[in-house]
Amino acid sequence: MKILTHRAQTKALSLAGKEDRCHPVRVPTLILCKQIASLHFLQVESLTTWPRTDLDDFLGRGGWLWNLINLKEQRDPFSLVADELSTLANRLRSMVVSEVPKLASAAEYFFKMGVEGNRYQPTVLLLMATALNVPKTSRPPDAAANTLSTELRSRQQSIAEITEMIHVASLLHDDVLDDADTRRGIGSLNFMMGNKLALLAGDFLLSRAFVALASLKNIEVVSLLGKVVEHLVTGETMQMTTSSDQRSSMKFYMQKTYYKTASLISSSCKAIALLAGQTAEVSILVYDYGKNLGLAFQLIDDVLDFTGTSTSLGKGSLSNIRHGIVTAPILFAMEEYPELRAIVDKGFEDSANLDLALEYLGKSRGIERTMELATMHANLASAAIDSFPENEDEDVQRSRRALVELTHIVITRTK
Amino acid sequence: MKILTHRAQTKALSLAGKEDRCHPVRVPTLILCKQIASLHFLQVESLTTWPRTDLDDFLGRGGWLWNLINLKEQRDPFSLVADELSTLANRLRSMVVSEVPKLASAAEYFFKMGVEGNRYQPTVLLLMATALNVPKTSRPPDAAANTLSTELRSRQQSIAEITEMIHVASLLHDDVLDDADTRRGIGSLNFMMGNKLALLAGDFLLSRAFVALASLKNIEVVSLLGKVVEHLVTGETMQMTTSSDQRSSMKFYMQKTYYKTASLISSSCKAIALLAGQTAEVSILVYDYGKNLGLAFQLIDDVLDFTGTSTSLGKGSLSNIRHGIVTAPILFAMEEYPELRAIVDKGFEDSANLDLALEYLGKSRGIERTMELATMHANLASAAIDSFPENEDEDVQRSRRALVELTHIVITRTK
Repeated sequence: MKILTHRAQTKALSLAGKEDRCHPVRVPTLILCKQIASLHFLQVESLTTWPRTDLDDFLGRGGWLWNLINLKEQRDPFSLVADELSTLANRLRSMVVSEVPKLASAAEYFFKMGVEGNRYQPTVLLLMATALNVPKTSRPPDAAANTLSTELRSRQQSIAEITEMIHVASLLHDDVLDDADTRRGIGSLNFMMGNKLALLAGDFLLSRAFVALASLKNIEVVSLLGKVVEHLVTGETMQMTTSSDQRSSMKFYMQKTYYKTASLISSSCKAIALLAGQTAEVSILVYDYGKNLGLAFQLIDDVLDFTGTSTSLGKGSLSNIRHGIVTAPILFAMEEYPELRAIVDKGFEDSANLDLALEYLGKSRGIERTMELATMHANLASAAIDSFPENEDEDVQRSRRALVELTHIVITRTK
Repeated sequence: MKILTHRAQTKALSLAGKEDRCHPVRVPTLILCKQIASLHFLQVESLTTWPRTDLDDFLGRGGWLWNLINLKEQRDPFSLVADELSTLANRLRSMVVSEVPKLASAAEYFFKMGVEGNRYQPTVLLLMATALNVPKTSRPPDAAANTLSTELRSRQQSIAEITEMIHVASLLHDDVLDDADTRRGIGSLNFMMGNKLALLAGDFLLSRAFVALASLKNIEVVSLLGKVVEHLVTGETMQMTTSSDQRSSMKFYMQKTYYKTASLISSSCKAIALLAGQTAEVSILVYDYGKNLGLAFQLIDDVLDFTGTSTSLGKGSLSNIRHGIVTAPILFAMEEYPELRAIVDKGFEDSANLDLALEYLGKSRGIERTMELATMHANLASAAIDSFPENEDEDVQRSRRALVELTHIVITRTK
């Protein structure tokens, strides 16, 4: 956590320096620290370890707090699209109405988990729409051009909804797969009914997603997102049916990760660009952003599965490795310690074997190299945004900064 | 079986009368009977019970056999499109190739069950394509018009493939649902792996179907078939979650039957018409044909679940009623004997209760009225074809006759 604190410290100080003007307001240190912590999505505790001299210097620059808060408004990617996200959630709810109430409620139940649990995907897509110079619908349309923009924005919101429907459908089906695995043999009728409904609600959402896609009347977009469903399935099957050689291959792991996590966000980003009539070059950059952000996200997820919110090994849920799913940290550790492969091949039903694997991971650079790889992908995502065609519009600039900020959030998150 | 025999007898005699010319060939009675039986898709045994005088009269009309055989060629709906069906099966196999061999083989395995087990749907669709005046691709394209027709035919073949993919995907998912129900608690790893693959292979086929749909570049068709998947899911959920009132309602049963069985064939028939650029009026007729054929098919299926290949009650697999699924024969019996509802509501885990329900069904007109309802829908399907715009083309006429013949086959089938 030291590295992160240092990073936050440097950034906050440089921001404070830049924005040092007007509003001489004095506030207690604790509130101040919390604001900074919240700005950088860090734990408050980590900030209190700052060297006292730096903190005094920092606090000494009177009046910068309001600017910081204002900056936070501008830079927090989620708050930039908060209103639109909530409209989106309502529109999604109205889209899963079905003649069969149980089906709708099953779909909606999981939706809540999707939309309200993880707002990354719709946030990225809405920011991307603005970053490509498409105004938000919240502005009153007062001219023909504005009406056109409003219509485009509405179509791009549909992409965010469709992405969420596909995402939740895949969660529902994964759930059926996981349940079948972990709870087999103890199924009550209720549990099975839940599974059946989960399967059917997943199919229902997929069909709604495709009908919504068709209504966008853009064949390239339909094809693009149709392919994503195939990727999700392919990734899941790869994970389910791997041989020992495949399980030990970094290439196989990255391919599977692309299919399972990065394909959906990269393709839906591209769909946003296609609807906006962007050039092929820009579409590729947009796709690259989504792909690299998705890969970085999953790599960090795989680290957190070992570390949880701390940096200590074994504090995470270890859910992947317990299910025999080998991820990047172990793969990097294997490169350093080839004998780890035989341990992995034995499986982890025996907890002594799991402890042994964790011991190897601990003495290797597995976690560190995974973080480095995640950072590399985050940087590639950020670089894609920097290569966007120049545009001086304030909204566009703000959304691009937020997309870059998201690449930091993804790799510094602790949950 | 007596009614069917009488029907076949009348038809065969009238055909023989009409086609009584040339080729005076004598053949032994047995072969003759077999030809007639095969022509009318009846069991040979049933024909041998014909009154001797009729048979003598029938056989007395020399020379009609070759005409009959020739007619059979023209009228057997399946043989008319046999070559194209086999091309279709090969194209389907090449479409389910996946990077993950297990996924492809799971999808293909169930495909064989679909395509080779039940050729009704692709047969109807290919015949419909010709019935709407679209030549088959087997003809060498020797002019620009022909090339256009060939392209259209190929797109219509795609509809048949996509329909089959959606159909098999729904079979795969139904299988997961059924297995969860009947085999819960005894799942081995293999069994669970089978279920997982079935779920994923179903999703895989759905995504392939949608990508193939998108490539047809006709938004109305994409939307139409997207809606079908929703109908399949809605029908399945209706069946799973019915209340006692719903289970006893003929309206609910017919709605569910439409969603589960008739929606796919009616919508894909309509897609064939839309691709051919037919008018809205013709599209409605085409849709009506598919819908009524699908309903007739399911009603007969529900009869056969009680009777099997004979007309005796209880000879069928009784798989619906054993799973608490109430179908038309029981619903009609309930109208005559309202006390049957309380018996049905008790469920059929107790076989004495099942026997009691079958007793009521036996003394009611349930089976008979279901057959009558199926016949009514078959006649409506047939009437839709008769209302098609006039067209004297021989191929078109032959396909229309075959579609009408299918309505007979569907209601006279014994398996």
